[in-house]
Amino acid sequence: MTILQGERADTADQGDADELASTAIIELAGRARAASRVLARSTRAQKDGALVALAKALVRATPEILAGNAQDLERGRVSGMSEGLLDRLALDESRIRAIADSLLEVAALPDPVGAVVRGSTLANGLRLRQLRVPMGVIGVIYEARPNVTVDVAGLALKSGNAVLLRGGSAAENSNSAIIGTLRAALDAYGLPADLVQSIDEHGRPGARALMRARGHVDLVVPRGGAGLIQTVVRESRVPVIETGVGNCHVFVDSTAELDMALEILINSKTHRVGVCNAAETLLVHSDVAEAFLPGALAALAERGVRIHGDDRTRAIAPQGVEVLEATHEDWATEYLDYEIAVRVVDDFDQALVHIREFSTGHTEAIVTSSLQAAERFTAEVDAAAVIVNASTRFTDGGQFGLGAELGISTQKLHARGPMGLEELTTTKWVVTGDGQIRA
Amino acid sequence: MTILQGERADTADQGDADELASTAIIELAGRARAASRVLARSTRAQKDGALVALAKALVRATPEILAGNAQDLERGRVSGMSEGLLDRLALDESRIRAIADSLLEVAALPDPVGAVVRGSTLANGLRLRQLRVPMGVIGVIYEARPNVTVDVAGLALKSGNAVLLRGGSAAENSNSAIIGTLRAALDAYGLPADLVQSIDEHGRPGARALMRARGHVDLVVPRGGAGLIQTVVRESRVPVIETGVGNCHVFVDSTAELDMALEILINSKTHRVGVCNAAETLLVHSDVAEAFLPGALAALAERGVRIHGDDRTRAIAPQGVEVLEATHEDWATEYLDYEIAVRVVDDFDQALVHIREFSTGHTEAIVTSSLQAAERFTAEVDAAAVIVNASTRFTDGGQFGLGAELGISTQKLHARGPMGLEELTTTKWVVTGDGQIRA
Repeated sequence: MTILQGERADTADQGDADELASTAIIELAGRARAASRVLARSTRAQKDGALVALAKALVRATPEILAGNAQDLERGRVSGMSEGLLDRLALDESRIRAIADSLLEVAALPDPVGAVVRGSTLANGLRLRQLRVPMGVIGVIYEARPNVTVDVAGLALKSGNAVLLRGGSAAENSNSAIIGTLRAALDAYGLPADLVQSIDEHGRPGARALMRARGHVDLVVPRGGAGLIQTVVRESRVPVIETGVGNCHVFVDSTAELDMALEILINSKTHRVGVCNAAETLLVHSDVAEAFLPGALAALAERGVRIHGDDRTRAIAPQGVEVLEATHEDWATEYLDYEIAVRVVDDFDQALVHIREFSTGHTEAIVTSSLQAAERFTAEVDAAAVIVNASTRFTDGGQFGLGAELGISTQKLHARGPMGLEELTTTKWVVTGDGQIRA
Repeated sequence: MTILQGERADTADQGDADELASTAIIELAGRARAASRVLARSTRAQKDGALVALAKALVRATPEILAGNAQDLERGRVSGMSEGLLDRLALDESRIRAIADSLLEVAALPDPVGAVVRGSTLANGLRLRQLRVPMGVIGVIYEARPNVTVDVAGLALKSGNAVLLRGGSAAENSNSAIIGTLRAALDAYGLPADLVQSIDEHGRPGARALMRARGHVDLVVPRGGAGLIQTVVRESRVPVIETGVGNCHVFVDSTAELDMALEILINSKTHRVGVCNAAETLLVHSDVAEAFLPGALAALAERGVRIHGDDRTRAIAPQGVEVLEATHEDWATEYLDYEIAVRVVDDFDQALVHIREFSTGHTEAIVTSSLQAAERFTAEVDAAAVIVNASTRFTDGGQFGLGAELGISTQKLHARGPMGLEELTTTKWVVTGDGQIRA
């Protein structure tokens, strides 16, 4: 159940609640807009100074933040939250310090604002420049991860934007303490506190209003599970960047170096499992299935990975390694766990057909020694990232050298792949003349 | 009334019609997707050769196209279409030749596909490249302008995309003849005819289905009046690029060279009037109002421009020049005609406040000799194009040197300002390794 679903209120009541929320959200968005204009006039030095100040303030506010966090954890336990989710929610001194340090990393990144994307002097003498400028007001709807609050605020600040945050009820007290700290620190530093605002008090009607506030809010970024993301993508009238669902494949081709393939497979599946760039399906060329699969399946099983396989995979599975019968649903499932689907394909083309059907456009990898196979794979697979002879886990802003990352976009518009500071900006054409008119 | 509105069908009937249309559109989108994959493998030489072949085929098919056009014009007259609209719909031999020539211009443009946007070798040896690739399948919803059919098909082809076209009933026969010609020519050339498909036969349910086909269609571009664009922006689940509404301002600042200001004003308002980059409001700094406005108002009136002005403007108007009383609505109106709204502002800041309230984010111009005013204007005005000392009419892909143009985007995501070939592409990360895994 996502934070946007829940008991269906009576339609009329929901209508009233939505209207009140609309008014409130538009007012907050107006404040955010005004705050973003002040920030747009700031220099990089001022923004970096603010990030340092925010980092210090967060560390100083550790007691308050932990107190809020304790309330959220208690509520979570009482409501039966899983250990995994409780762990993602939980903060301690060292986690808060790490979160604060991430702001310092953002301060170290180049400022995208003001970059000249391109420019020229036209034949008629007009000086043309395309400048990078802040998006303006960004809404972020996320679930139960207090570190996202700080990540987002830091990236937005650096790129000149104001944010409206809907962190959800599970982390409400943690976020309230964090956001209160950030706002006070901004104000003390001399920047508008309204650069960071929470809309949590307006509940689900507030989230819906945020998504409808086209023109008042420039961009909405959902971060969380597939359910949340799909809801936002479907309902938002504000432009959205769709992040994260990664049904990633590793295809071991007929010319693959099998030792390399095994390392890449294990790393792609088990380096971290609850992440969008973890591999979820293994495809193996029939020419190397007998040589590769027994060892690969055993290695996966050794690491506690539950394996679903097609008939040919099950036939090759070694003694003692259980391979469940794969269904059509397995090919489409992003397990986000110690679980994988395995299929033997007749040839390269069949691998492409399979990937084409089940890919979510995130990351697809091939292990091969064939130049032609590598070229065809990278040309014909339609995904944010296509990888040859490396782990799928590399699709990551930090790994790509982009610095901090707001998420990994799987859509095609505006941003595709890891989203960093640049993706939180838009452009503006500036034309300077001496009186030129059209003939 | 836009092509998407009309008599409200019984909801159940509309539901059935929508479902049938959905199935049909998804099938067409699938064919478009397959066709785009073939095109993605084509070289620039092949694509340019196809554009030349299409241009020749259009000229050869002049009789058939004119026959279809005659049917549309007859229907248009019978239904009371205005002279202006009939003129936009009408084709003749020389217009068809000009339309065909535009394909040759597209052939001359650089190919955006395959460009390496950025790249590097990471510390761990991974070779990283961000490549420009086609968007894939693009839907275009437009009204009554047969030349748009060819413009769009040409830009899409050059940038590696397949298109689904909803041209509307007014130009149905013209478009049918044009699209039939394009498809036959593509096939004869050796490319899939399904690179260009019309969805007109599916009527409004087809247009709605197109907008809902997220995942099957990658991008929808509406071209036409504000009503059509707003409908698409509001209802589409497929990413949209919002084009065109231009409530553009010319602000004559206190240090403006008044002769230059007059030339820029007249050109911005009257060079062409029914276009998005025409100026719709003149703002004049009170310091120069008496020196500038009498001559400016007379010059506008001389050219048949109907003038709406605030009290101060009306007080300064010379004898014989009628200035109607401006209402709040005038400041917000994109006249697209020989009509303008004029306001005297107290100072620079009041001009900014006015523009901030009424700008549609298209083009805003200042005439000034003050460096500070120019810098503040370009920094603080939030629009796709901000212009200093030149006509607003320069916001145009051709004028900017971008080549052909699909429209002028007023949104912030993906494309802002004139949209050319590059804006019909997305990117893909290609990572090549030697077995690297995450530590």
